[in-house]
Amino acid sequence: MEESPLFWPAYIKEKTLFVLDETLIPTKVKYIAVKNTKEAVSVIRQMKTRAFGQFLVVLNTFLIELSRNKGLAPLKVVKKMQETAKALNASRPTFPFADVTSIVVGWSQKALAEKVEMYSYLEKHIFGFLNGIRFRRLERVSKIAALIANGDSILTHCNVSGELAMAAAMCRKENKKVKFYATETRPYFQGAKLTAWELNAMGAQVTLVADNAVASLMQERLINRIIIGSDRFCANGDIANKIGSYQIAILAKEFGVPLCVLTQPSNTIKKGVDIPIELRDPKELLSFEGKKIHAGNVKGFYPGFDVVPHELITETIAVETGAR
Amino acid sequence: MEESPLFWPAYIKEKTLFVLDETLIPTKVKYIAVKNTKEAVSVIRQMKTRAFGQFLVVLNTFLIELSRNKGLAPLKVVKKMQETAKALNASRPTFPFADVTSIVVGWSQKALAEKVEMYSYLEKHIFGFLNGIRFRRLERVSKIAALIANGDSILTHCNVSGELAMAAAMCRKENKKVKFYATETRPYFQGAKLTAWELNAMGAQVTLVADNAVASLMQERLINRIIIGSDRFCANGDIANKIGSYQIAILAKEFGVPLCVLTQPSNTIKKGVDIPIELRDPKELLSFEGKKIHAGNVKGFYPGFDVVPHELITETIAVETGAR
Repeated sequence: MEESPLFWPAYIKEKTLFVLDETLIPTKVKYIAVKNTKEAVSVIRQMKTRAFGQFLVVLNTFLIELSRNKGLAPLKVVKKMQETAKALNASRPTFPFADVTSIVVGWSQKALAEKVEMYSYLEKHIFGFLNGIRFRRLERVSKIAALIANGDSILTHCNVSGELAMAAAMCRKENKKVKFYATETRPYFQGAKLTAWELNAMGAQVTLVADNAVASLMQERLINRIIIGSDRFCANGDIANKIGSYQIAILAKEFGVPLCVLTQPSNTIKKGVDIPIELRDPKELLSFEGKKIHAGNVKGFYPGFDVVPHELITETIAVETGAR
Repeated sequence: MEESPLFWPAYIKEKTLFVLDETLIPTKVKYIAVKNTKEAVSVIRQMKTRAFGQFLVVLNTFLIELSRNKGLAPLKVVKKMQETAKALNASRPTFPFADVTSIVVGWSQKALAEKVEMYSYLEKHIFGFLNGIRFRRLERVSKIAALIANGDSILTHCNVSGELAMAAAMCRKENKKVKFYATETRPYFQGAKLTAWELNAMGAQVTLVADNAVASLMQERLINRIIIGSDRFCANGDIANKIGSYQIAILAKEFGVPLCVLTQPSNTIKKGVDIPIELRDPKELLSFEGKKIHAGNVKGFYPGFDVVPHELITETIAVETGAR
């Protein structure tokens, strides 16, 4: 299966982690070299990577920290792993960083207890874990393609890290005619910059709309299905996703359009109201590529995510990450 | 009452029509000199002016055409007026240009029938008409201020040409504490560029949000009232307004937030479904200040307006323009 660069946006090579700089897309496909936890936190905070990319950065950051600290005693290595976990957990609030980092810290504690060589033990587990997720994500691409019917017109919001674009390519091979509408997804423009770009690159027909045009699209019956991702999943089925997802879900219910959400199940949060919603720096809203779009003493309010209650979700396609 | 520049964004001086270039706000407050119908159509089409500004441009364009054709025989002047009306009517589809131009053509025909001097007759009627509208709009500002209660937090979308900002200033004089949230209003950013600017200039507290954040604002009870304008009003009470208004109205109903619409009643269209919705050039969506925000072969779909059905409107505050 041909892969979108957004499907696997970070990899390790010679003890350096390379992270796709999504803020440069669609202008450039360029990777940032990340050498330690501090730099990893920085690329996450600046949203150089996001969504699934964060998952990759988190896991691989432990490996680069291990490389840097190979000479240390095992007990000190475990402490390093705990420090790395703590720093990563504090990077952004909505994505379940702690679910992921606690797995790796657990492995390092197990390696210590079992007195095995720390680096190779963790490397084996992290690579194995990532390979499993890779396989399940590729499976999910097939499931998404199977969900899509010939003649469908699909709305998506923000970006689901390659999977929708790859499913679109599968549909094309199966001679299904499918149209895509991407919301531009202000303020960060993930829809315009990432989703439209990768759908187009994978040969799909994609039309960009303003976030304001969603009700119009539904009223005019221009779309018959919605597929979005999620940054957080709750035990009761509520999800958190990019700001704007909640209103799209309310409109979908109003117009009877089925809403499919790609999830990574986790039981650490019971219901949506308990998900911590990140408030991002209003500067990111009040300017575009460094240029102010307003004047005077204007405040901005920029929640990065909102919560879609499970009642509004028609179906989910899960990838179990093992994070609990 | 102190006026916002957006309240009366066009005026005649020495046979030239000066039109506020709203595309330069908030960077500059600059007026474009318009000397004939063709230039008037151009400033409307390019959205250098919009909403109420279009009304002023239309009426004043007849006066500048009259100035240019003072020597002509009255019958020929009427023909000129009809040509001007036809060109203006074809400028953009959603705003009721024909309602306004037909009034002026009617006056010119009346002047012809009554054999009175054409220029002074039309000038008197147009100036009288505009003065009446000015008075009623100032009255509406007071009505908006009266609607707003101490402690209100008001969401607005797009821009209502000065009236909300001036009402905000009245509220401040009356010591009412009022907060405003303005959607940025993609793709044109009227909320960020015009509304936030003029509310701020009139001393109001304003917070900009992405169009995606409306449901979040309502869920968090951060707003308790919505005030928007309208570009078209139907006999059954449906309105057309800037794209995004419809989804805000659906969300308002979902969350029980009252929606007040400023209207200019007209009976020429029975119901919303009959309003012609302008499809604007996708380029305006696919780039920002000349810079492309996407890559590849991406289409754009940019309806300029949508229709809010009357069932979703809690109350209207009308200014009768006499246009029927």
